[in-house]
Amino acid sequence: MTDREKIKVFKIGGNVVDNPVALSTFVKDFSRIEGKKILVHGGGKEATRLSAKMGIETKMIDGRRVTDSDTINIVTMVYAGLVNKRVVALLQAAGCDAIGLTGADGNAVRAVRRNPEPIDYGYVGDISPDDVNTNLIDSFIGQGLTPVFCAIMHNGEGELLNCNADGVASAVAIALAQKKNAEVELIYCFEKDGVLRDIDNPESLIPSINKEAYLRLKEEGVIVQGMIPKIDNAFKAIEKGVASVTIKNSANVDRNRGTVITA
Amino acid sequence: MTDREKIKVFKIGGNVVDNPVALSTFVKDFSRIEGKKILVHGGGKEATRLSAKMGIETKMIDGRRVTDSDTINIVTMVYAGLVNKRVVALLQAAGCDAIGLTGADGNAVRAVRRNPEPIDYGYVGDISPDDVNTNLIDSFIGQGLTPVFCAIMHNGEGELLNCNADGVASAVAIALAQKKNAEVELIYCFEKDGVLRDIDNPESLIPSINKEAYLRLKEEGVIVQGMIPKIDNAFKAIEKGVASVTIKNSANVDRNRGTVITA
Repeated sequence: MTDREKIKVFKIGGNVVDNPVALSTFVKDFSRIEGKKILVHGGGKEATRLSAKMGIETKMIDGRRVTDSDTINIVTMVYAGLVNKRVVALLQAAGCDAIGLTGADGNAVRAVRRNPEPIDYGYVGDISPDDVNTNLIDSFIGQGLTPVFCAIMHNGEGELLNCNADGVASAVAIALAQKKNAEVELIYCFEKDGVLRDIDNPESLIPSINKEAYLRLKEEGVIVQGMIPKIDNAFKAIEKGVASVTIKNSANVDRNRGTVITA
Repeated sequence: MTDREKIKVFKIGGNVVDNPVALSTFVKDFSRIEGKKILVHGGGKEATRLSAKMGIETKMIDGRRVTDSDTINIVTMVYAGLVNKRVVALLQAAGCDAIGLTGADGNAVRAVRRNPEPIDYGYVGDISPDDVNTNLIDSFIGQGLTPVFCAIMHNGEGELLNCNADGVASAVAIALAQKKNAEVELIYCFEKDGVLRDIDNPESLIPSINKEAYLRLKEEGVIVQGMIPKIDNAFKAIEKGVASVTIKNSANVDRNRGTVITA
């Protein structure tokens, strides 16, 4: 029996990439984390600001950006250019040998354009763990590189597609667990310490949630709205072979504080 | 005795990346070229257009963009985001396993910010072949990947720097020749078939130029202005170990037509 390869997949959102202080703290802490690791980052508000400056209207439906041809250019510039390279350069300066990737780079991750019915989101894609190039990612990790993904993927036919960063993180984690038999930890970082019983009280952190507790917490109205798809995704990742999913504060990335989702 | 590794380094400029038809032709031809290869691309006019839309004045001194903090963000968005990912996605669609890179990615190439005296160009960097991470590039090529560089590099301290794409191509070519003992061909692609005796007559192509001929052609006024630094760079690359430098039309990338610079 050989030891399973251990890999940590972290996801940070707009609240970190938009805030130089939060980003700098995260970069320092993330760089110090030992072992094999991957970072997936969201986009932040820069794309909306840039669209506004260029007179392009930002349309959102259910929190998803409607991505027409002008908008895919803008999000490619901001997510794959500005944000991704800023994060990579800061990680390099902190001693982490990061490499920025879209799904097109090395054909790392393919996406399928979302069906335009019932809602046409434009250049928006969905990814399946089957479409993650785990050989490439594993070879980069084996070389000591830390892949840093933005959520711009490609369809293999020359089109770039805007995807959901939470979904990229879970697809990459699931793919490495399934295809490489790796022991994968998936860590969603956001602006709170984890799932809180009382959203205004950081001391009310719930340290772990299993399926049973999740159903009860939903019934009690403790887990609502934006947290529901996050936790649904977490359970899906665990069912598909990811060893653990943790929801924690991006400022606590190197500390053992957060909500662990368990089967 | 072992055979030396053969690598071709191509550079395309703004005239190709700005023109969808020229880019599509180049991508198809480039994808078909056998063997190990690297692409370096320039930026084109998109950065100037974006700056104008955002109300940021574009300042050029001697053909070099003065790169203040707003401008480094814009060129990072356009060169490392929009242009680099567009080229990579098109190459992937054409069957070439391209990977887009800035100098920060995998610490591929470091640059040094240019001395602000006598002219302060801002976030503009210069690179030396010593600062090219040939182990990384060689390992990518060995995996069957085709590195696609834009001219955004980093200084290792978290800053991104705007560099000259011709200079990136020659530094990468020289570094692979010197540090990997590779047999490197450097190919500068532009909108003409090569060095022309009469700029308006494509039939007046000069098939090869050595140092002696170069001095004579300069005296005769055949080689002027923008072509002089290009050819000076070509001779420098050859002196430093690059096997050959060719100047050719981006539409002829797979054809044996152009001006070969020889020692």
